[in-house]
Amino acid sequence: MTITSQDVLRAAQKLQGVAVRTPLLTSAAFDGLVGRQVLLKAENQQLTGSFKFRGAYNAVGNLNESQRHRGVIGGSSGNHAQALALAARQLHTKATVVIPGDAPAAKTDAIKALGARIITYDRIREQRDAIVYETAHSKGLAIIPSSNHRSVIAGAGTVAWEMVQDAPRLAVILVPIGGGGLAAGTVLAAHAYNPRLKVIGVEPVTANDTHRSLRAGRAVLIPPPATIADGLRHTRPESLPFEIIKSLISDVITVPEGAIVDSMAYLWSHYHTAAEPSGAVALAALLHAPRSLPDGPVGVVVSGGNADWAEYRTLLDIAMERKERNAHAIPVLR
Amino acid sequence: MTITSQDVLRAAQKLQGVAVRTPLLTSAAFDGLVGRQVLLKAENQQLTGSFKFRGAYNAVGNLNESQRHRGVIGGSSGNHAQALALAARQLHTKATVVIPGDAPAAKTDAIKALGARIITYDRIREQRDAIVYETAHSKGLAIIPSSNHRSVIAGAGTVAWEMVQDAPRLAVILVPIGGGGLAAGTVLAAHAYNPRLKVIGVEPVTANDTHRSLRAGRAVLIPPPATIADGLRHTRPESLPFEIIKSLISDVITVPEGAIVDSMAYLWSHYHTAAEPSGAVALAALLHAPRSLPDGPVGVVVSGGNADWAEYRTLLDIAMERKERNAHAIPVLR
Repeated sequence: MTITSQDVLRAAQKLQGVAVRTPLLTSAAFDGLVGRQVLLKAENQQLTGSFKFRGAYNAVGNLNESQRHRGVIGGSSGNHAQALALAARQLHTKATVVIPGDAPAAKTDAIKALGARIITYDRIREQRDAIVYETAHSKGLAIIPSSNHRSVIAGAGTVAWEMVQDAPRLAVILVPIGGGGLAAGTVLAAHAYNPRLKVIGVEPVTANDTHRSLRAGRAVLIPPPATIADGLRHTRPESLPFEIIKSLISDVITVPEGAIVDSMAYLWSHYHTAAEPSGAVALAALLHAPRSLPDGPVGVVVSGGNADWAEYRTLLDIAMERKERNAHAIPVLR
Repeated sequence: MTITSQDVLRAAQKLQGVAVRTPLLTSAAFDGLVGRQVLLKAENQQLTGSFKFRGAYNAVGNLNESQRHRGVIGGSSGNHAQALALAARQLHTKATVVIPGDAPAAKTDAIKALGARIITYDRIREQRDAIVYETAHSKGLAIIPSSNHRSVIAGAGTVAWEMVQDAPRLAVILVPIGGGGLAAGTVLAAHAYNPRLKVIGVEPVTANDTHRSLRAGRAVLIPPPATIADGLRHTRPESLPFEIIKSLISDVITVPEGAIVDSMAYLWSHYHTAAEPSGAVALAALLHAPRSLPDGPVGVVVSGGNADWAEYRTLLDIAMERKERNAHAIPVLR
């Protein structure tokens, strides 16, 4: 099964008037600090608070009548589950979602509010996919995975497609890599628009499964990552996105946890926007490894905003303290 | 001097390609909670983090060559000062700003970074306007007030003008009232678009100078207000905006401090956007006095986002605690 930019264009048509065409945020002050033009794609302002709605809606919308009658199921760290719950409600079917027992309450509450059925599992001891497959089989549900699915990748690709329409002269797009669906969609869309437009994936240092897999030339397994970026705690790249990423991505950069919290603080102080940790990972590459990036305007995908307040507050406190302690870091203007 | 909607249209032309055309944010979950469609005009994403840039740029842009050569001066709680500093820099003149000694560091730091000269004053014991007039006179500077100025009001009116273009079927616009420039521009733009479109001003209970003045039929003086909404601590409506507001506004609603912090928390949790207290005041009316509003879609101006982290965190903590304690309040979904 080959996925092409045509799938992304079809997804863009399907999402027209359904998904939010999220804005590109700018900050002259932040541009001054990093010495280049930065454009943030605010997918934290997407329906259900993350880019995941695009793929979920596209995938459920591509099911046939009989599949939709039986219902859909998906496993997720939380954002895909919310997205699937809303997509199912909008397309008149029923969603069952399998999420970790330690998912942030913000995500769990929102899923419940959207009327989906929730099954929780233990992230360390249980196999999420096994639960999804067994439940799907016994109840006849269509599986909509969070990344490893043609329509989900195509839907995620509409993020970058909108970015290049709104900012035609981007030199590089920074995108977080979890399961790889967003990164795969991004490279497809970017390459179709302009083969010279670079896409650089970003992973937390401890969740570097794609970084290591690219170096190994095949998908390798890593231990369950301990990163604050709960949406990117994947232990192995998904097969379909990995094939696409492998052939089209320019590079993958890994970022330490400190750069992620700094990035969350910049989003708050300079852009007045609230990102969850995973949503701040791509911007962290600009803080942590600016010399690894090509010259020119940078597009950054802020993938989501569903954080718990207690966690968010703690992380921004840490960032503000880092700023006080370390005068050599790029200052967080308050 | 009569200000009309033509001034707003001319300001919109001048700001085209200069100011950010800020998005209208939506949240299906929040709409469900309040039982109506809500559209937030995210002026916290405007250049310098507040709507003030529109009026400042329009006013500096309307000066003649010789005035711009000598420079501009303005007094402000902080946001107008930042706006004036950036507008002056973009239009190749020099800004001097007079701000309270207790203005949030976020605002003071940003003004310095934009290269403006800062004069601080004591909000209780000193008269800001006297300092502005004396400095302007001795140095030959053009005064650009934060509200009481034709071009500033016209620039502020472009906020509502964009709202009605992007959401033609709004039934009511909620707008915060400080000096009254934003509210005056809003009623002008709204009335020109559709005389039946209502505009309701919102003030903190303790900063109710316009509310009381409208009831008295003339501008009355109140004691220095103690509200957390530092941008709205005005003690008397400005003359020019007040005349416009008096003739065209539908109503003014006052909101308690608790509703303002709840509103900040909803903006964070449901819209993933960060507002300063003044920027959350209009939304607070929807929480505090929903029955005072006409039926139909509500447009809400989120006027700015320049908060200090320490203050922001404290206020959101209070809001989250209020939610835990009070099950009868509209719940803050986390």
